[in-house]
Amino acid sequence: MPRLWRRQAPGTEIVGMQPTVGPEAIEGPFDGALCLPGLLKQVVAAEAQHVDAHIIACFDDTGLDAARAIATKPVIGIGEASFHAVSLVAHSFCVVTTLSRSVPLIEDNIRRYGFSHRCRRVFASDIPVLELERPESGASERISEFIREGIRLGAEGIALGCAGMAEFASALQRKHDIPVVDGIGAAVGLAETLIRCGLEPSKRGVWAMPAHAKGLDRFE
Amino acid sequence: MPRLWRRQAPGTEIVGMQPTVGPEAIEGPFDGALCLPGLLKQVVAAEAQHVDAHIIACFDDTGLDAARAIATKPVIGIGEASFHAVSLVAHSFCVVTTLSRSVPLIEDNIRRYGFSHRCRRVFASDIPVLELERPESGASERISEFIREGIRLGAEGIALGCAGMAEFASALQRKHDIPVVDGIGAAVGLAETLIRCGLEPSKRGVWAMPAHAKGLDRFE
Amino acid sequence: MPRLWRRQAPGTEIVGMQPTVGPEAIEGPFDGALCLPGLLKQVVAAEAQHVDAHIIACFDDTGLDAARAIATKPVIGIGEASFHAVSLVAHSFCVVTTLSRSVPLIEDNIRRYGFSHRCRRVFASDIPVLELERPESGASERISEFIREGIRLGAEGIALGCAGMAEFASALQRKHDIPVVDGIGAAVGLAETLIRCGLEPSKRGVWAMPAHAKGLDRFE
Amino acid sequence: MPRLWRRQAPGTEIVGMQPTVGPEAIEGPFDGALCLPGLLKQVVAAEAQHVDAHIIACFDDTGLDAARAIATKPVIGIGEASFHAVSLVAHSFCVVTTLSRSVPLIEDNIRRYGFSHRCRRVFASDIPVLELERPESGASERISEFIREGIRLGAEGIALGCAGMAEFASALQRKHDIPVVDGIGAAVGLAETLIRCGLEPSKRGVWAMPAHAKGLDRFE
Amino acid sequence: MPRLWRRQAPGTEIVGMQPTVGPEAIEGPFDGALCLPGLLKQVVAAEAQHVDAHIIACFDDTGLDAARAIATKPVIGIGEASFHAVSLVAHSFCVVTTLSRSVPLIEDNIRRYGFSHRCRRVFASDIPVLELERPESGASERISEFIREGIRLGAEGIALGCAGMAEFASALQRKHDIPVVDGIGAAVGLAETLIRCGLEPSKRGVWAMPAHAKGLDRFE
Amino acid sequence: MPRLWRRQAPGTEIVGMQPTVGPEAIEGPFDGALCLPGLLKQVVAAEAQHVDAHIIACFDDTGLDAARAIATKPVIGIGEASFHAVSLVAHSFCVVTTLSRSVPLIEDNIRRYGFSHRCRRVFASDIPVLELERPESGASERISEFIREGIRLGAEGIALGCAGMAEFASALQRKHDIPVVDGIGAAVGLAETLIRCGLEPSKRGVWAMPAHAKGLDRFE
Repeated sequence: MPRLWRRQAPGTEIVGMQPTVGPEAIEGPFDGALCLPGLLKQVVAAEAQHVDAHIIACFDDTGLDAARAIATKPVIGIGEASFHAVSLVAHSFCVVTTLSRSVPLIEDNIRRYGFSHRCRRVFASDIPVLELERPESGASERISEFIREGIRLGAEGIALGCAGMAEFASALQRKHDIPVVDGIGAAVGLAETLIRCGLEPSKRGVWAMPAHAKGLDRFE
Repeated sequence: MPRLWRRQAPGTEIVGMQPTVGPEAIEGPFDGALCLPGLLKQVVAAEAQHVDAHIIACFDDTGLDAARAIATKPVIGIGEASFHAVSLVAHSFCVVTTLSRSVPLIEDNIRRYGFSHRCRRVFASDIPVLELERPESGASERISEFIREGIRLGAEGIALGCAGMAEFASALQRKHDIPVVDGIGAAVGLAETLIRCGLEPSKRGVWAMPAHAKGLDRFE
Repeated sequence: MPRLWRRQAPGTEIVGMQPTVGPEAIEGPFDGALCLPGLLKQVVAAEAQHVDAHIIACFDDTGLDAARAIATKPVIGIGEASFHAVSLVAHSFCVVTTLSRSVPLIEDNIRRYGFSHRCRRVFASDIPVLELERPESGASERISEFIREGIRLGAEGIALGCAGMAEFASALQRKHDIPVVDGIGAAVGLAETLIRCGLEPSKRGVWAMPAHAKGLDRFE
Repeated sequence: MPRLWRRQAPGTEIVGMQPTVGPEAIEGPFDGALCLPGLLKQVVAAEAQHVDAHIIACFDDTGLDAARAIATKPVIGIGEASFHAVSLVAHSFCVVTTLSRSVPLIEDNIRRYGFSHRCRRVFASDIPVLELERPESGASERISEFIREGIRLGAEGIALGCAGMAEFASALQRKHDIPVVDGIGAAVGLAETLIRCGLEPSKRGVWAMPAHAKGLDRFE
Repeated sequence: MPRLWRRQAPGTEIVGMQPTVGPEAIEGPFDGALCLPGLLKQVVAAEAQHVDAHIIACFDDTGLDAARAIATKPVIGIGEASFHAVSLVAHSFCVVTTLSRSVPLIEDNIRRYGFSHRCRRVFASDIPVLELERPESGASERISEFIREGIRLGAEGIALGCAGMAEFASALQRKHDIPVVDGIGAAVGLAETLIRCGLEPSKRGVWAMPAHAKGLDRFE
Repeated sequence: MPRLWRRQAPGTEIVGMQPTVGPEAIEGPFDGALCLPGLLKQVVAAEAQHVDAHIIACFDDTGLDAARAIATKPVIGIGEASFHAVSLVAHSFCVVTTLSRSVPLIEDNIRRYGFSHRCRRVFASDIPVLELERPESGASERISEFIREGIRLGAEGIALGCAGMAEFASALQRKHDIPVVDGIGAAVGLAETLIRCGLEPSKRGVWAMPAHAKGLDRFE
């Protein structure tokens, strides 16, 4: 995935980590629940390696609160990063994601973060993830159809609702002359921002460090 | 816990189940994440035993979406049940829970379900759970202090934000002359309601049955 | 109407009462206002007969606050009951009601209770009530059209917005494979829930018992 | 009450009408319900006399939707008029009303109209209405205490939440150097505005004229 | 523009003033910013001439907070006036404005004032302002198309979102049998209301008089 | 001000620019309006110098929409930057600003961006700006009092609501063990994020480039 990582600042190193337990992909809340032990183990491992920040590269922002509780360093989800970034370059926006079953989760997150009044619609393209990886498959044109519909609804910007769509962002932006946000790039920038500002997850409330994280040992 | 279960309709049988893997108690989002595989395994087991409905007896409503995805029968959380019930007998309400670190989670849930404008305040009593089980410990009087403060804020009803507080509900209701909701009783009633009405979780959207639940096998 | 009442718990007896003064049907806010004295007299009469709870079988939830003020027992409207029930089995929902002039009242109620973010649309079928009672009239197919449109809008559940539609709920649910809520069944369940939990309308605020209810005598 | 009516434009004549059936005063939702037939009969009578507009001089805006349905001319409630007027001269405001049991009704109305984010608090002075009419009773000083508390909360304006408080508005405004709105004056101005602009209640939706108003004859 | 001003009360004199510096028309936020010095100079000049109130005749309500800060007399924007007026005669409404680039500004204002839940849609007619002034140009018919679409969306009233459309209000109202609000007429009425009620912008908060207004001298 | 600028990424150069016309400081909406021509001229000048992004270093985010309309490069306000950043490290936050007259403007902005449900309170310290620059003046201790009060209200993070407070951020963060955000650092990071992601203000809606910016020439 190095192509996705070209957007970091000079000196920023990005290390990809993958849970060793859990579902292959996150398609809905059941998969999201099952991935949590594996995801949290990676956060613990990364903290032990003294990383400066964590990025959860799932557009559902799965496990964000749990990860912030167990981390001492900033944790950013690519979903939230997309919404923050697009709202800085577009008065209102649309999201184009893959699965229709993820739309309510994304709508819930948008409302939870406070961006509902800026979001015109969350579209499900229903493009299989494998198709996304074959550019000749017409996935880009299918995403384009939703971007056109979003523009008709008044959207001034687009958030691509799947890490696998990141490769298309630049070309779609040029094609439609509208800001198109890829969540990974946005999350890297937000993480760098928090690091440089010396900001880390507050331990005064919901993300207070748990008494013991040993429960994770059960999920080998 | 049979004392808690006295509120079911004639003919309703309630069976208590406990996850065999996961944290002892849920204190914050990290514990909430770790309990999910164990909780979901119980839901699968209960479905295999042809229960009519599931109740998640954690006031944080942990895993509600994931459980509804994997269940064919109604799933009710005791947090949401409390908010639904109290809003039917009180124009506005307060919540008295145990841990301050749970307050933001509960506030998020209240907003997610749509009851924010009815909730005056979520109080954390910071009473250890073990104290709750010793009635001579003064826990009841400490809860009473928050009920009095809630009444001063205009609350017309109280939701007890912890399954361990259910024993106190009736006495507190009489003492303060204000509706006091215990979430387990409310959840049992809502589950019975859905069963009698023939209502089951919609499979048309976010709770569509996952392609395979075998991932659960990893979490023995 | 005994067919509607098949959903109560064992031991629950349901008694239908009809105001003796007021409009034949409630079509809009003027009719709603005129029905109040008659409705409240029935509540007073029912309290004198020591009922355990009251159900207001109008989807507009007409007179809910006034009835709760004069009642010592739970009062449930079938509109609010529908919204509570559907939100427990569907992430978002649509309503199919009869008259377009009732749509704004229903939208106001949905917002007042806090379910706006879950409601995709309130449809008016404009089917005359008499047609509803003649199954051969095609009313069911007309409701089906709105259910299909609701599903296209992303609704995962349907609330039937008229007591006269309750007969269709089960068949529509099977036909469209989506939860379809009939408000009377839902209201009966919620009333039973509150009764079993010992919850009655708070008298600490807006529903405090009025000094005297004798004003009702004027409306014979 | 001519003292209250000094604020109309030249040429505006104000006629006071009183329902002949219903409670003496409106204290809570039960009284509000009982006053409706009498109130609506006055609206019908006033329409027959070709008035140009109707004002409902109850701060709860009782019967506003029903009156607009049966009227062809503008109908203004003094509660809504107060909120509209104060929001034009104050970024945020507080309300000082009489009875605590009316506070939830007023809060509901403020939210229904859309002014919640501008309202810092609704105070109940618990001053009996008769006391309001005896200026030597200290009612003005008691209202002043709530105005001071409202200013501490950041309110830039005050709405007096009871027609009986209108006499105090000017003196309180001078004393506290803050806009103090009397709802009757505001309602008269709004009614004149709508009349001059040729605006009348829309008959295209919830306020469509009912098929027959003869139901009113029952409530002599 | 005297034709627009026929709606004032007897004795009200309206004086038109035009900034001597700034853009010819306000098309978007840049023009809105540039017009402010000129607009505020007119407010200072009008205060020196002891006017009773100020109306900002731009539907974007440009400079409203700044003008209220420097004025001792009521200041009303024609946008806000339209929303207040239409919400008194219609349960929900649509806006028909000229430029699509103004739509987000108007939506922001509607949300800021609290009317979002009443507004079904803000339409941009994209009629050039000069066309508006030539009645034979078909502008009226183009506005009618949006009114028809608004009615299909459930709007019960229409706000014309441009001062130049005021001439059409009465004819459109008759044609479509729906309340059509012209913001200038509404603003005149609201200003008269505040004057008669003795209400002036609160100086206790955001509109406190600035220490010195001499900065305006720089913008000759 | 180089001390403030220590937080940029390697290779980022920050150039401070000051309007040559307009008020010395922005205290309320009148000053905010007067500063706009000067501010926008600086944006035009900076675009001519081919900067990569613009930061408006006023916590009120004065002129943000107008600047985005005339800019082709990202524009970030330090107020919005603070709210975005603090919401990534704190579930809820408080703001400590200087002037009480700015509180409503900041509250409006927080609501406009969508962060109201995360903001517990906006405090005005009423510390004169000059005092902020003299660390021996006790300003830090006065800010600390509000941070303690914010923590009592449940805030998990603090946003310092004035560029002049940025110097205190690190020390206050250590002292109170809570994230403390300085808006300039946050804005620099967000600007770098947008630059690296190739995101620029959408020209498809409210920020469409104005036909001509020559109006600025009038404000020398």
